[in-house]
Amino acid sequence: MSVNVAVVGATGAVGEEFLRVLAERDFPIRNLKLLASARSAGKTVTFKGQTYTIEELTKDSFEDIQIALFSAGGSISREFAPAAVKSGAVVVDNSSAFRMKDGVPLVVPEVNPEQIHKHNGLIANPNCSTIIMNVPIWPLHRANKIKRLVVSTYQAVSGAGAWGLYELEKQQKDFAAGNQITSEKFPHQIFNNLFSHNTTIGDDGYNEEETKMVKETRKIFADPKFMLTATCIRVPIPRAHCESINIEFTQPITPDEVRAILSKSPGVKIVDDPQSNTFPMPLAASGQDLVLVGRIRQDISRDDGRGIELFVSGDQIRKGAATNAVQIAEKLV
Amino acid sequence: MSVNVAVVGATGAVGEEFLRVLAERDFPIRNLKLLASARSAGKTVTFKGQTYTIEELTKDSFEDIQIALFSAGGSISREFAPAAVKSGAVVVDNSSAFRMKDGVPLVVPEVNPEQIHKHNGLIANPNCSTIIMNVPIWPLHRANKIKRLVVSTYQAVSGAGAWGLYELEKQQKDFAAGNQITSEKFPHQIFNNLFSHNTTIGDDGYNEEETKMVKETRKIFADPKFMLTATCIRVPIPRAHCESINIEFTQPITPDEVRAILSKSPGVKIVDDPQSNTFPMPLAASGQDLVLVGRIRQDISRDDGRGIELFVSGDQIRKGAATNAVQIAEKLV
Repeated sequence: MSVNVAVVGATGAVGEEFLRVLAERDFPIRNLKLLASARSAGKTVTFKGQTYTIEELTKDSFEDIQIALFSAGGSISREFAPAAVKSGAVVVDNSSAFRMKDGVPLVVPEVNPEQIHKHNGLIANPNCSTIIMNVPIWPLHRANKIKRLVVSTYQAVSGAGAWGLYELEKQQKDFAAGNQITSEKFPHQIFNNLFSHNTTIGDDGYNEEETKMVKETRKIFADPKFMLTATCIRVPIPRAHCESINIEFTQPITPDEVRAILSKSPGVKIVDDPQSNTFPMPLAASGQDLVLVGRIRQDISRDDGRGIELFVSGDQIRKGAATNAVQIAEKLV
Repeated sequence: MSVNVAVVGATGAVGEEFLRVLAERDFPIRNLKLLASARSAGKTVTFKGQTYTIEELTKDSFEDIQIALFSAGGSISREFAPAAVKSGAVVVDNSSAFRMKDGVPLVVPEVNPEQIHKHNGLIANPNCSTIIMNVPIWPLHRANKIKRLVVSTYQAVSGAGAWGLYELEKQQKDFAAGNQITSEKFPHQIFNNLFSHNTTIGDDGYNEEETKMVKETRKIFADPKFMLTATCIRVPIPRAHCESINIEFTQPITPDEVRAILSKSPGVKIVDDPQSNTFPMPLAASGQDLVLVGRIRQDISRDDGRGIELFVSGDQIRKGAATNAVQIAEKLV
């Protein structure tokens, strides 16, 4: 069975990755429609050797479309996803617009694939940092309930969009050329610097990225009391997020038990070689779909054997966005 | 009262900073002797408008020296610090050689200044990440005993020495010029990447940097049971370390109480402005002596009000090394 697919936001960082992942995974596409703003309409894109012209996104774009992959920001999703659903398409939406809405499944296929078929036309793709954390911690949580988790992130600039990568590279080149470094879209210089994730801070002092990690994990795990705190930091890295994760389990657990569980877990690759000092890194995580997990060790700050430390890295544009959405679409077909 | 001062490792990253800090703070120097390896001997250095010639370090270098500031690595300290002590100098040693030795005070002046006068000729300067963490957490620990602490670091390349900065800059320039990027001393490419701190991993899975943070904090706080776990990560930042710190206190505590304590604490500057998204950053921490503290918030993963999250940044060459040592020397004079 092959289906008619629309990609909304086809010229964005995630949109371009959608096309790469659809081609790589040989997704059963009958007709492919590439949609973007009027500004991008008319541009051409190559997919599996064929040339496609970007069309302007309108509410009439979704006739005969079975699956619509959205990644053009929350306001575009809010405006156009209902039209796509009305036309009979199933929308897999990468924005945060519908993630916390009741009745909209929020899915990481390695965690809660059973939610996919409960959709009412809309399925939400979680936040990138959330997906990258959930893939390795879910199988651990199933084996030994997590009581509390503390995560600190090291997030790549392309998580902010293609402009984030552009801004980092421009600053890198200006530095090398001896030019003055200016920040255009990030609130602070990112080259040779790092800063707290550039999203709005809530009354509780947490920024939106941190709040997403907390609330989305609770929804994905179907555990509204899952106890979790996050600190989200933007670092001068082009691609792939890292996360330092400290976990308190209900029962004692050893690093060997964690390794045994993770070595059988889908979507996870253990990269944990103390001899050569090789652990998860953005360079190794970029351009592939697995979440790399390493630095697996007993938390020495606990004397009850219930603590584990992990360091993970995953490509936030692939598994953190495009690949996760395409995996959902595969289960729909 | 002024004293004769020797700086050992005068041409290194910390050695150069020793001179800057001694000049800025108008340290009461009668005679200044700059010592380094034979390779650097004969080079000249300017200090307060005067030209000094670097002399080769030998065991006879310390005659008439009252204070010797060492920062030339552990093996140099092990070989030459005893000779300096024998000559009657007090050594303030920035290496890890003597830090954990009984009878050698390990001092952060904002924490345990009373230890300074208990020396037997040797005082150890703690690890940079340890100092930057201890300055803000000590006053909190005094007000409300810390039960357990989880820290993840974001450490600048110059913490590895001047070569770390050289390697990052070379990779930045090679990238901009379109050249191939090669790693010479770091185990992995640091440009556009990050990796687990490049020190040996112990049997417990912790690297040396993490173990230093744990053991040194226990010695400085005179609390062998202080419960702490650390994950130390090297990031592509030239200067100033950051740390994401999660603290569990014995009694409930609010962010306002934390702010009130830290606003009166020596060596700390609160940088915590959610409106403008301005929090501690390496660019702001570099070249000054305070530990910047922000993102002060209640840990939402606890329902007992005993958790606090912090994000801090400090210049690891200044407060993390040179300034801390000079502060110790000031108390000796």
